[in-house]
Amino acid sequence: MITDGGTTTHPVVGIVMGSDSDLAVMELTGKALERFEIPFEWKISSAHRSLDATLDYIRKAEARGIKVIIAGAGAAAHLAGVIAGQTTLPVIGVPLASSSLKGLDALLSIVQMPGGVPVATMAIGEAGAKNAGILAARILALSDETLQRKLQSFKEALASEVEEKDHTLQKHRS
Amino acid sequence: MITDGGTTTHPVVGIVMGSDSDLAVMELTGKALERFEIPFEWKISSAHRSLDATLDYIRKAEARGIKVIIAGAGAAAHLAGVIAGQTTLPVIGVPLASSSLKGLDALLSIVQMPGGVPVATMAIGEAGAKNAGILAARILALSDETLQRKLQSFKEALASEVEEKDHTLQKHRS
Amino acid sequence: MITDGGTTTHPVVGIVMGSDSDLAVMELTGKALERFEIPFEWKISSAHRSLDATLDYIRKAEARGIKVIIAGAGAAAHLAGVIAGQTTLPVIGVPLASSSLKGLDALLSIVQMPGGVPVATMAIGEAGAKNAGILAARILALSDETLQRKLQSFKEALASEVEEKDHTLQKHRS
Amino acid sequence: MITDGGTTTHPVVGIVMGSDSDLAVMELTGKALERFEIPFEWKISSAHRSLDATLDYIRKAEARGIKVIIAGAGAAAHLAGVIAGQTTLPVIGVPLASSSLKGLDALLSIVQMPGGVPVATMAIGEAGAKNAGILAARILALSDETLQRKLQSFKEALASEVEEKDHTLQKHRS
Amino acid sequence: MITDGGTTTHPVVGIVMGSDSDLAVMELTGKALERFEIPFEWKISSAHRSLDATLDYIRKAEARGIKVIIAGAGAAAHLAGVIAGQTTLPVIGVPLASSSLKGLDALLSIVQMPGGVPVATMAIGEAGAKNAGILAARILALSDETLQRKLQSFKEALASEVEEKDHTLQKHRS
Amino acid sequence: MITDGGTTTHPVVGIVMGSDSDLAVMELTGKALERFEIPFEWKISSAHRSLDATLDYIRKAEARGIKVIIAGAGAAAHLAGVIAGQTTLPVIGVPLASSSLKGLDALLSIVQMPGGVPVATMAIGEAGAKNAGILAARILALSDETLQRKLQSFKEALASEVEEKDHTLQKHRS
Amino acid sequence: MITDGGTTTHPVVGIVMGSDSDLAVMELTGKALERFEIPFEWKISSAHRSLDATLDYIRKAEARGIKVIIAGAGAAAHLAGVIAGQTTLPVIGVPLASSSLKGLDALLSIVQMPGGVPVATMAIGEAGAKNAGILAARILALSDETLQRKLQSFKEALASEVEEKDHTLQKHRS
Amino acid sequence: MITDGGTTTHPVVGIVMGSDSDLAVMELTGKALERFEIPFEWKISSAHRSLDATLDYIRKAEARGIKVIIAGAGAAAHLAGVIAGQTTLPVIGVPLASSSLKGLDALLSIVQMPGGVPVATMAIGEAGAKNAGILAARILALSDETLQRKLQSFKEALASEVEEKDHTLQKHRS
Repeated sequence: MITDGGTTTHPVVGIVMGSDSDLAVMELTGKALERFEIPFEWKISSAHRSLDATLDYIRKAEARGIKVIIAGAGAAAHLAGVIAGQTTLPVIGVPLASSSLKGLDALLSIVQMPGGVPVATMAIGEAGAKNAGILAARILALSDETLQRKLQSFKEALASEVEEKDHTLQKHRS
Repeated sequence: MITDGGTTTHPVVGIVMGSDSDLAVMELTGKALERFEIPFEWKISSAHRSLDATLDYIRKAEARGIKVIIAGAGAAAHLAGVIAGQTTLPVIGVPLASSSLKGLDALLSIVQMPGGVPVATMAIGEAGAKNAGILAARILALSDETLQRKLQSFKEALASEVEEKDHTLQKHRS
Repeated sequence: MITDGGTTTHPVVGIVMGSDSDLAVMELTGKALERFEIPFEWKISSAHRSLDATLDYIRKAEARGIKVIIAGAGAAAHLAGVIAGQTTLPVIGVPLASSSLKGLDALLSIVQMPGGVPVATMAIGEAGAKNAGILAARILALSDETLQRKLQSFKEALASEVEEKDHTLQKHRS
Repeated sequence: MITDGGTTTHPVVGIVMGSDSDLAVMELTGKALERFEIPFEWKISSAHRSLDATLDYIRKAEARGIKVIIAGAGAAAHLAGVIAGQTTLPVIGVPLASSSLKGLDALLSIVQMPGGVPVATMAIGEAGAKNAGILAARILALSDETLQRKLQSFKEALASEVEEKDHTLQKHRS
Repeated sequence: MITDGGTTTHPVVGIVMGSDSDLAVMELTGKALERFEIPFEWKISSAHRSLDATLDYIRKAEARGIKVIIAGAGAAAHLAGVIAGQTTLPVIGVPLASSSLKGLDALLSIVQMPGGVPVATMAIGEAGAKNAGILAARILALSDETLQRKLQSFKEALASEVEEKDHTLQKHRS
Repeated sequence: MITDGGTTTHPVVGIVMGSDSDLAVMELTGKALERFEIPFEWKISSAHRSLDATLDYIRKAEARGIKVIIAGAGAAAHLAGVIAGQTTLPVIGVPLASSSLKGLDALLSIVQMPGGVPVATMAIGEAGAKNAGILAARILALSDETLQRKLQSFKEALASEVEEKDHTLQKHRS
Repeated sequence: MITDGGTTTHPVVGIVMGSDSDLAVMELTGKALERFEIPFEWKISSAHRSLDATLDYIRKAEARGIKVIIAGAGAAAHLAGVIAGQTTLPVIGVPLASSSLKGLDALLSIVQMPGGVPVATMAIGEAGAKNAGILAARILALSDETLQRKLQSFKEALASEVEEKDHTLQKHRS
Repeated sequence: MITDGGTTTHPVVGIVMGSDSDLAVMELTGKALERFEIPFEWKISSAHRSLDATLDYIRKAEARGIKVIIAGAGAAAHLAGVIAGQTTLPVIGVPLASSSLKGLDALLSIVQMPGGVPVATMAIGEAGAKNAGILAARILALSDETLQRKLQSFKEALASEVEEKDHTLQKHRS
């Protein structure tokens, strides 16, 4: 079992970013993982400026118990792809809208990976950062029934939330 | 253990397409899964034309032992997103270049999912179809050591293949 | 006759949105329908988070007297397309500019529907939200002469408004 | 009742194109209307080269019994928008991929109409041409029960077709 | 001779816009024409909402002495193209960035005119609005030597302005 | 009077291209000018590879009687803009689809000129090449009544051509 | 040796801009060069408005000891390409996001140079302006060992900076 | 002196590609270098599939006498950026049009590098491959007078070639 209600201290997800300026958006990944009580760790490391540290982190990650790696990057976003080439763990990429092209460059840099080295690409920006955490939960839940139940109740909560908004609207409009 | 060298008949991956015209590209997903001896099944079903059948398939998939769903679609590609909303399994989306916009429409329709419902989006077309199978393998390998070893040897084979091409080139050029 | 000057309470148009955050723009659809005294109703429901509720709403809509459905959504905007697959009523889609791609993603997700399941797509954002209401009026007016006359006078008012602006400009510039 | 099994000769839909070179794609609109036995007529007329003839056609269309106008055009596709400004009938626009920009220019020229004058925009090219006919059928069916039944059976046929393709696939793969 | 230092009251250029909201940018066209003392007039008229008034204006323009028509429009910008089809005068189009697509829609709607009906398209927004006035001056100068001299001195002023900025920069940096 | 039925040998329009590979498309400009019996000349010269020759050509053009310059170029298409900076004659730019970006690069390189130096930009490719010749005719006709009449009859021919195509279609379909 | 710790006054890099409005971003190029103590000079000159001054500057640059030219421009950014055609020195282009298209126009105008005349294109905006200076340093360091050592220590500083940010993050999160 | 008429066997330029399928286009880089008698070497190595070999090659390159590295890649083209992070040599990137997005993905992946790690980006495809070789020549010529003279004569040959094409055209047209 991966999760135990938050008391486990061994992280199973690594969130990697090239710069601390990406943290504002990637916080949403952390919040999503916390929602499912999945232990995770942060890592600032760059595919261009500190590749050795990045490779060192990735190559030891699996032995340290990491099961899913999430990489957020903007512009010519190479981090997720480079990581995906150095591990056989599932790698999730989050394109960030940090350049004047509003994340289209990051999206194409992350998603258009050549055959052989997949990156599970999320939406640009906040929606993608949040979904990266949820996708990690879906992946980890394949071997964790407790997590599977949490995902099920999260799914129901999403539906309830929409329906409550609808009820509120119906009241105000009638 | 998920895989047993091909003799298992219970599929653990479902490949869903809206039309048999998508089969030519999505075959590459099948081939990738066969490479890793992961049992899988095909399903033609549409989010627009046969939503009931799609929902019926998705809702029973988990009980039937399916662990990862891969959906390929072109143009206004809603299949992966609709499926992702109906399951807590990991869903992988493959954008196909079937319209005059060459898959940019399918890519944005699949990847730009709102917060709460992730789709692991692959590259447009053949590279993405192949990678969908490999990502499924990476996900399943988290609880299957045999599969993990196959991924490791696949990773090494990719590297060897590049190096062999380099050796061939060096010979021809010297 | 569909409309009777506002006293009818049976809505003939349903405006569906995935989130209450879309309401700010979609209000313009409501205002356009009010301009023509067409009774309508609001519905918050999602193709991803609350598909069952969406399908339930759509499948009962026709029997409840709904004749046109308008769906507003941003990003990977699947709502209009999924609805269009579940009804034979005319469905109008309004792409919203809620992501960093400024509605291009929503536009392509809505307009690029495959053959067989049309969505009448409007412009991105406010212009499209307003026009959705006017298109509904044009459709309903085919069997409602009063509404036809209102559309005719609206058309004349649009022309007059432009000409008045021209007159004002001519005065200020001479 | 609009349709009577094909014997009616009064067209209720007008398909307008700027050039006979657009006919190859717009034939699919005609075929879709024939599928529903909706009488229609063809018109070649341009918003730029023969505006007077276009306006003459549009202004008499309603009196002649036309209820829906479908306009197909490529590149700077102004035809649908200009028509929409001259009638209160519903106008459906089909963007054609006739320039090197593959229909993106036509799509934006048709869909981005300003508030006040809606054009119901379809997908680029063949899918859109076919869907224009189906959307016309959905609109006309609001006051034609026979047509409504045909649409219902068309919808069921779409679903069956997908399911048959799935059955064929299952046989070949097992 | 077209211009006489500003005392002529017969306008030779008509600046047409679909809405007074376009005036803020199109003012730059007026200022450019004033710079060259070219008499001009303003006209608010729409290709969609007030086509009759637009056609009436265009068809009388030549007889009234108008020699160049400048049309500014945003989104599905049909105004310049429709005007170009109704006159043999040179027509200059200015795409405005009034929608969420930042003028790309207006640019493609104006520039991608089919063979037979040219629109001289300018840059999106302020640069284009200014240049529309200068292009009109270049056209009118073909038969107006005074205007030709003004353009020559304007060209020299542009060069001087750049060189002065360079001198200022050199001083501040040394 | 500029034109005299083809016997004049003094060219009034210069068509400039960076390479003879552009000639296949730019021939359409020549044909359009021939249609109006406007004498013109060809010039192959590059803004990058033979700037001196280009500048020499442009600076002498006006004295040699050239009144309008048309420049066709693909990719990073600088030719029209550089010419426009070196003359006060009207300059028309034709973007060519010679790179993998299908002319979008050439369009933006030509149309997005900064304030002060306008280029009258045409559509990408063949439509634009043809229209460049017609725009030159419209400009030259401002001081040439014969040419004005030819443009008027050309305009009528365009309308007749569309109407004939319509008549042919009506016959074949009835 | 090119650099001597800042005391050399002969500039070896020229930074050219079309307007002083580009200075705010291009300052980052200057700062990067100062970081490596590479002497440089500023030049405001335009390919459109002051081509003669630009050509004069470029043609004398090499004799004056300039070894690398950096050109920043927005919109239809022709400056770098025109310069590259007039020198055999390496030319670096920086696309600026000064138009409503956010630098996509400038990027394509600079990067899509035809075969024969290369421009070393940087990222849009601030990142590109900074990198232009660093690329110049990399080029100059090929014959300057001191500069080579500075680049090496800069590279190490980039890595350290990332690692420090990571350490800070680890502290705050534990 | 770097070059000695072809007899030197020590390569000073390394051309790196991720796959031998890129060789067809990258041959043009080789031809350009041969034109200037610059010794070079080929290397097939991938940033994703064989990163260790790539890093090994890059880290030894400088000691082996390599002065400029050219990297060609398509789709999510990370090769040039990753190399640029591991060396202080100038790195030139060539985006290849190998995916359905026609090189736009490769262009953005290569050019949008973050501040600190520049890649000198060339045009997409053949023009860019050729120009990569020429840019390398311009860089190397800074410390090689023979090469500088070759570049000068190449520049003159480009101009002559354009002028000859013009002469041929003038003959055929007169």
